[in-house]
Amino acid sequence: MADGFLMEVCVDSVESAVNAERGGAGRIELCAGLIEGGTTPSMGLLQVVKQCVRVPVFVMIRPRGGDFLYSDREVDVMKADARLAKLHGADGLVFGALTEDGRIDTELCMALLAVCRPLPVTFHRAFDMVHDPMVALETLISLGFERVLTSGCDSSALEGLPLIKRLAEQAKGRIVVVPGGGITERNLQRILEGSSASEFHCSARSARDSGMKFRNPHVAMGASLSASEYSVKVADVAKVRTLNAIAKNIL
Amino acid sequence: MADGFLMEVCVDSVESAVNAERGGAGRIELCAGLIEGGTTPSMGLLQVVKQCVRVPVFVMIRPRGGDFLYSDREVDVMKADARLAKLHGADGLVFGALTEDGRIDTELCMALLAVCRPLPVTFHRAFDMVHDPMVALETLISLGFERVLTSGCDSSALEGLPLIKRLAEQAKGRIVVVPGGGITERNLQRILEGSSASEFHCSARSARDSGMKFRNPHVAMGASLSASEYSVKVADVAKVRTLNAIAKNIL
Amino acid sequence: MADGFLMEVCVDSVESAVNAERGGAGRIELCAGLIEGGTTPSMGLLQVVKQCVRVPVFVMIRPRGGDFLYSDREVDVMKADARLAKLHGADGLVFGALTEDGRIDTELCMALLAVCRPLPVTFHRAFDMVHDPMVALETLISLGFERVLTSGCDSSALEGLPLIKRLAEQAKGRIVVVPGGGITERNLQRILEGSSASEFHCSARSARDSGMKFRNPHVAMGASLSASEYSVKVADVAKVRTLNAIAKNIL
Amino acid sequence: MADGFLMEVCVDSVESAVNAERGGAGRIELCAGLIEGGTTPSMGLLQVVKQCVRVPVFVMIRPRGGDFLYSDREVDVMKADARLAKLHGADGLVFGALTEDGRIDTELCMALLAVCRPLPVTFHRAFDMVHDPMVALETLISLGFERVLTSGCDSSALEGLPLIKRLAEQAKGRIVVVPGGGITERNLQRILEGSSASEFHCSARSARDSGMKFRNPHVAMGASLSASEYSVKVADVAKVRTLNAIAKNIL
Repeated sequence: MADGFLMEVCVDSVESAVNAERGGAGRIELCAGLIEGGTTPSMGLLQVVKQCVRVPVFVMIRPRGGDFLYSDREVDVMKADARLAKLHGADGLVFGALTEDGRIDTELCMALLAVCRPLPVTFHRAFDMVHDPMVALETLISLGFERVLTSGCDSSALEGLPLIKRLAEQAKGRIVVVPGGGITERNLQRILEGSSASEFHCSARSARDSGMKFRNPHVAMGASLSASEYSVKVADVAKVRTLNAIAKNIL
Repeated sequence: MADGFLMEVCVDSVESAVNAERGGAGRIELCAGLIEGGTTPSMGLLQVVKQCVRVPVFVMIRPRGGDFLYSDREVDVMKADARLAKLHGADGLVFGALTEDGRIDTELCMALLAVCRPLPVTFHRAFDMVHDPMVALETLISLGFERVLTSGCDSSALEGLPLIKRLAEQAKGRIVVVPGGGITERNLQRILEGSSASEFHCSARSARDSGMKFRNPHVAMGASLSASEYSVKVADVAKVRTLNAIAKNIL
Repeated sequence: MADGFLMEVCVDSVESAVNAERGGAGRIELCAGLIEGGTTPSMGLLQVVKQCVRVPVFVMIRPRGGDFLYSDREVDVMKADARLAKLHGADGLVFGALTEDGRIDTELCMALLAVCRPLPVTFHRAFDMVHDPMVALETLISLGFERVLTSGCDSSALEGLPLIKRLAEQAKGRIVVVPGGGITERNLQRILEGSSASEFHCSARSARDSGMKFRNPHVAMGASLSASEYSVKVADVAKVRTLNAIAKNIL
Repeated sequence: MADGFLMEVCVDSVESAVNAERGGAGRIELCAGLIEGGTTPSMGLLQVVKQCVRVPVFVMIRPRGGDFLYSDREVDVMKADARLAKLHGADGLVFGALTEDGRIDTELCMALLAVCRPLPVTFHRAFDMVHDPMVALETLISLGFERVLTSGCDSSALEGLPLIKRLAEQAKGRIVVVPGGGITERNLQRILEGSSASEFHCSARSARDSGMKFRNPHVAMGASLSASEYSVKVADVAKVRTLNAIAKNIL
């Protein structure tokens, strides 16, 4: 790492990959579907990105959005995509898989790692859905993952900073703990100082208006989301009590 | 077509492809990211789906969500993915591309069609974003597309039914006009009777709860959407007047 | 009804109420929170709207978004708001309440109707969540509701048109069946011709960009929605079969 | 303040108000539409809440979601609602209003404050949309607001903590700076220790499944959100460079 740190930028287009490198990214995580948190990119995208950037390109191997509990067929797809990504110039691979009770799926990881090698492999933010992060970290180290990407099992790296710090301390360099999730120019300093991380992951994206002059406002291609008609949010006595106790303890 | 009609089901997993065939689908449209309306699937998914189903598999070639106005780099990616899809057993390809003023991007289509042939090619619901659908239909026919998928330039095939009917009448069999977009068991009969279509496109999906027993409610991988803080919806005098005039004219 | 029909426009601001009347609305349904489908408006809004429009103003009485299964406290709130709305010039009231098994909550309706009278009362789209709409219609008639607002128990009035037609036929004028839900200038004619309704309900809104020159893109006041991390959508064999059978039956 | 601090819980139902008090809240902020960030509650809700809790109830005066740039009519509505809230037992009022260039709308605030007094008044998170927060703070102090609610002009109180701290230091007790926005039991300690705040604002809510046994999955009352078809997110060279420079500076 030239500067003593490495910034990994996750991208889902050639333009983003080129911009990331121009801005100083030390590595690209290549995905499709960032709206779902990142899924396996097409090999066409990998081919063209490899022609356009020199920094290492780590390829996401994730067959769909949602959880990380995979069927046998989905594992077949992941293995096939890992092989293809290696074939088409990936410099590293990124995946994650859990058991239904929130442990690392050791068996599946070993099978996939065998396909991925000799490339370095990152265990992605499936880690943030584990039941016991400290135990899970040791599992990843024993499996030989080079990196783990995490927001500290919370909604963002800043929110999960206390756990990221503990993970980095427990790792002692046996695995690179890479903070990621909502990193911005406004919170990066706190996260780096709070976690002593040497690598971090971000998307650093801005929305750009379409070049389309003609627009049809009545049509949407993608799915729409709406609040559930069969769920209501209520102030939770237990949550209020917990907050109260924390405040009493401090003030 | 064995039954005098063909049902195309768009899927983004092996399980969905197998279920679609078991339910009687005559063709699969293989995508990733259906949450964005469907993007290019991974070749690993295509490989495993081809091992599991016998019906034809048409592969989506769409580098990202959003509009259909593509940069040169994105076209490179689309060409690379079309070649790879043919290599990995696609039975047909699906794409769409527009100019900024809402016309069919003839030049790009010709370049992509050249890569796609000899496979049959469907122009997808980019069609629903065109400025003049009747002119656009003739363009697709002259370019040699076998099919066009459309919701009649409206939010769903039922809403766009009047235009779908006119498109089918104008096509006179020179291109298959395939209704798609929000087709359900509750509106299919109206759409088929109203459009005299011989093929239709649907996803026929149900939501299935995850098998994960352990769940972390604080973490989301994907993007979140929220109402814009800088836009307000107001009853529109012109819209109210138009509705009023329509009602006056009928009643 | 001057024109042989009446257009009711739901609004959540004075500006929308004024625009609706100027466009020809025959009645206003005054709500707050149209993003949640409409909740009880503030009495300040009712006061100012009554100063600005002459058409009748029907006031929504709905304590929150979500379902229509209310606690005793919520019923207290609904009764209090119905009294206040009458006090502040409402020309009619709009509410809906169901039992957990999807029937009309007759007891609650009778209690609320007693508070609402002598004003006319509309049972709103809670009706679209009932288990048996034909039975529910008779219940509303026996309770004395003047109107029922419905999208035909489907995602929009156009989708639910077949049921709206059957409801209107069964009603035989004993209650006004008012189609509502996604009515636009593109589908109104089909809905009126298909339902022989003499009243319809719409919002006829357009999005207007904020007048704010200075904008902070980092802050959102409202809630954000994201796809569930613990749910996956899969092509449903039963749904595919049903669609297949419908198509086979027609073509 | 009995415990040296005060927890304000924002609620939009009687049940939430009762739960908040039972959990130890020192004050209630009564809203409707928390999905939009909180709007003016109905007076029926205020009446019943005042019958059920003893802690002070501050009432939100906000005519709609979206920005804080109000028309004359909307100001009329806000004044009417402030009068009604005082009439119906409010113990304090909460509002916010800005000019188009992101300054405090002093004129409107003075007019509304005159209606609100003698009740204490909080300027709500409209503050987080101001152009210059330090200048805006002095404006609020000079106008006589007792409190300002803020997430430090960022997406949450934790993200905006550095600014909240500076605001509290500048305030020197002339106005209570109340952190709010995404406060949870996992970040409260950091926020209190980082801001030396003596009051904080939270919702402390949990989602509760509806009691409805019968459910219609096809119908939604509220609006749905979908990603824009005419916007694409691209890695931003300037953002990547800024992050790079921050990291270089620290590591």
